[in-house]
Amino acid sequence: MAIQTNGLSLILRLKIGAQAAFSEVTRAIGEAGGDIIAVDIIHVGKDSVIRDVTVNVHNEDHREEVVRALRKRAGIEVINVSDRTFLVHLGGKIEVQGKMPVKNRDDLSRVYTPGVARVCEAIHEDPSKAFQLTIKRNTVAVVTDGTAVLGLGDIGPAAAMPVMEGKAMLFKQFAGVDAFPICLNTKDPDEIVQIVKAIAPGFGGINLEDISSPRCFEIEERLRKELDIPVFHDDQHGTAVVLLAGLLNAIQIVEKKMSDLRVVVTGIGAAGIASTKILQAAGVTNIVGVDRHGIIEAGKSYENPMWDWYAKHSNPESRTGTLADAIEGADVFIGVSGPGVLKVEHLKAMNRDPIVFAMANPVPEIAPEEAEPYVRIIATGRSDYPNQINNVLCFPGIFAGALRARASDINEEMKLAAAKAIADCIPRDQLNEQYIIPSVFNADVVKAVKQAVAEAAYATGVARRESPHAF
Amino acid sequence: MAIQTNGLSLILRLKIGAQAAFSEVTRAIGEAGGDIIAVDIIHVGKDSVIRDVTVNVHNEDHREEVVRALRKRAGIEVINVSDRTFLVHLGGKIEVQGKMPVKNRDDLSRVYTPGVARVCEAIHEDPSKAFQLTIKRNTVAVVTDGTAVLGLGDIGPAAAMPVMEGKAMLFKQFAGVDAFPICLNTKDPDEIVQIVKAIAPGFGGINLEDISSPRCFEIEERLRKELDIPVFHDDQHGTAVVLLAGLLNAIQIVEKKMSDLRVVVTGIGAAGIASTKILQAAGVTNIVGVDRHGIIEAGKSYENPMWDWYAKHSNPESRTGTLADAIEGADVFIGVSGPGVLKVEHLKAMNRDPIVFAMANPVPEIAPEEAEPYVRIIATGRSDYPNQINNVLCFPGIFAGALRARASDINEEMKLAAAKAIADCIPRDQLNEQYIIPSVFNADVVKAVKQAVAEAAYATGVARRESPHAF
Repeated sequence: MAIQTNGLSLILRLKIGAQAAFSEVTRAIGEAGGDIIAVDIIHVGKDSVIRDVTVNVHNEDHREEVVRALRKRAGIEVINVSDRTFLVHLGGKIEVQGKMPVKNRDDLSRVYTPGVARVCEAIHEDPSKAFQLTIKRNTVAVVTDGTAVLGLGDIGPAAAMPVMEGKAMLFKQFAGVDAFPICLNTKDPDEIVQIVKAIAPGFGGINLEDISSPRCFEIEERLRKELDIPVFHDDQHGTAVVLLAGLLNAIQIVEKKMSDLRVVVTGIGAAGIASTKILQAAGVTNIVGVDRHGIIEAGKSYENPMWDWYAKHSNPESRTGTLADAIEGADVFIGVSGPGVLKVEHLKAMNRDPIVFAMANPVPEIAPEEAEPYVRIIATGRSDYPNQINNVLCFPGIFAGALRARASDINEEMKLAAAKAIADCIPRDQLNEQYIIPSVFNADVVKAVKQAVAEAAYATGVARRESPHAF
Repeated sequence: MAIQTNGLSLILRLKIGAQAAFSEVTRAIGEAGGDIIAVDIIHVGKDSVIRDVTVNVHNEDHREEVVRALRKRAGIEVINVSDRTFLVHLGGKIEVQGKMPVKNRDDLSRVYTPGVARVCEAIHEDPSKAFQLTIKRNTVAVVTDGTAVLGLGDIGPAAAMPVMEGKAMLFKQFAGVDAFPICLNTKDPDEIVQIVKAIAPGFGGINLEDISSPRCFEIEERLRKELDIPVFHDDQHGTAVVLLAGLLNAIQIVEKKMSDLRVVVTGIGAAGIASTKILQAAGVTNIVGVDRHGIIEAGKSYENPMWDWYAKHSNPESRTGTLADAIEGADVFIGVSGPGVLKVEHLKAMNRDPIVFAMANPVPEIAPEEAEPYVRIIATGRSDYPNQINNVLCFPGIFAGALRARASDINEEMKLAAAKAIADCIPRDQLNEQYIIPSVFNADVVKAVKQAVAEAAYATGVARRESPHAF
């Protein structure tokens, strides 16, 4: 399986002494296998010249080789190494804009004093007007404590910012939803709940992100109870919704019913538990969970409160043992665990037309090439294979729909509606084993999800906007 | 003195029954003295027509008269009354934008997974890189608890949002600084301090706003101590800086020295105390404070800790009594109190060439028309007189300068530098009694303040950006 990388485009800032010829630079880079794209003069001094040299390399190890080759040469000093990814991050990736310019006294008196006072009074008299007259109408807080960021783990709030900023970009780009990153310098669940409650007045929704298990469950549950705006932990539910969308399409291809499926889930953490719950809400009755030390046994007591819940709500056949015991005769494997967990002999033991969602990131439970001869349908979280299960298909539209309806919650029905809308974006005559999930760049997805989620909000009585066409 | 209003431009949504002619509408509005600007069809039904009618009126009372006149007519229903101020507030006044579009897989992998992971790692290894690689470089949180909003008092966080959004607009419009409103649903100083500390990782500075006295002092002081980014309560210091700027120019006109001035301050609250401190830092040695029950007596103990501080740091002549006793022979009157506090007989008792800054909002301590025969220079907070003391002259530039230098604080020297920069924006040959403060729309102000404040940060050792021209 190829290492997932897009190549690196570097900008090397070099200080070249007067005695060294530029050909030294080209030779060093060429010998190390780098590909020079451009050269720019930055500064000409008495004894040296500073140039920016743009170089393509294969990956980070290759970058180090090229830099080392340059440093070996006398007269060449590598001042700085940048690459395009770092460059797009300079100063952050998002900005705040006014929606109208403030060019003169007239504008100023309307958006600020004295005109703004009447708007404040109107909200003071009727707090629901905050949804009409402030950014609460369209804004989501992206909240993290930096304890479970991507594959990096507990890197803290400052280091989590680039991911949260990226999330905000995607909210706006895909669904026109305004989002702002809030990275918290505390890991205490009580404090996190208290802080999010305190900042809630200016927001229409809260997207919890990259908060480690098991604290994320308690935090989301308490905030859902105590706030009147939607609170949604994307790492749990985004994955679950998109996974369900893929499964809804997959079972149509293999002609099976949700209620007949035997499902195995490996990795009983945030995503595994949320996936299990949504599958059960969608009609699946037979799910077995497997974690590091084996099957979660029906009815057994576990210290981990989530596993304890799982033990009471899964495994109707009371299976015990390892993954091999769980997967015997199974129709669906869902992996939200780690690389190499799933083997070919597991696949051979499955029922006809196995469906495998191997979503460990960045290396799935099994390589698609290895699995393909033994499965009917395979999906991963990776962008370099078909059927990418990507949260980006869910969170922009689900919040857009919730905000549209001014929903007080994102409930199970809204999530199911989102999953169905995503699945239905693939025309039935285009549905096939390699195409069970729409592309994140499919412009129909957000529209469909927003519509379906808003309708589900109205249908389940959590919508608060009186009429879709109110003045 | 004119009531400060800009007239109101209304949009009346009217449902007009089939039997009623539109001339009924024009007659009703005309009789009530409203001025019809435009009419638009919204909806044509079987029995009625919905039209939006744009009408100019004098003020809110006049609006009510016009609406009442319409409601008297049979066949006319007033569905909704909007005005331009409310209309520009629909959905809030600010939005969050990505700095680059995310159009394809290449873009996505650079601003989100997998490329973003390397940026997170870089910050994790070197936390100072957050200033280069995230919005921390240029972003200020505008934080309030809604307890002292404009002249409205304690209206709470949701109702405070329009003011905070407006502040964010001005930060961006005037200084290119990104700002985001954070309205807190708590009044407890300990909680406010704790929450602001927790959200600090993603911000380069904190602007405290509309937090009532005396809690605002403790909150700002503790946050300045415990955070390594600037914390600035604009209601205190913004007013003080701009006031000092005005005074620096005023004393040039009257040819007096700071150290010779006798100054009286009425209203010993947040703005009054901050103004006193900055004047003292600028060289004023003789200040007397007056509040509701009279002069703050030198050396006396007060329950209010701010008054207690004031008693120990002012009134070198140990004056006692009322404003009349304080203002005898004074050179400068600074009012941050309420309307009608200052009388003509007070002005007559002042020294030659009295300088009066009457900044109670919206009605000053004395009307300029009333004061003018007895003073050399008068300034207020109002936009409909010359010499408007407006915080907008300070906060955008002072934060821009602090962020530019990556300052850990906004200290006294930086505030003094800002005041001087504002004052110096008026060319000496244009300086006169009616022009001691530049206009908020003077494009030189922000540039000058940013430069001066950044230099002061470097000069006082609180700057952390290694070189103004670092890569």
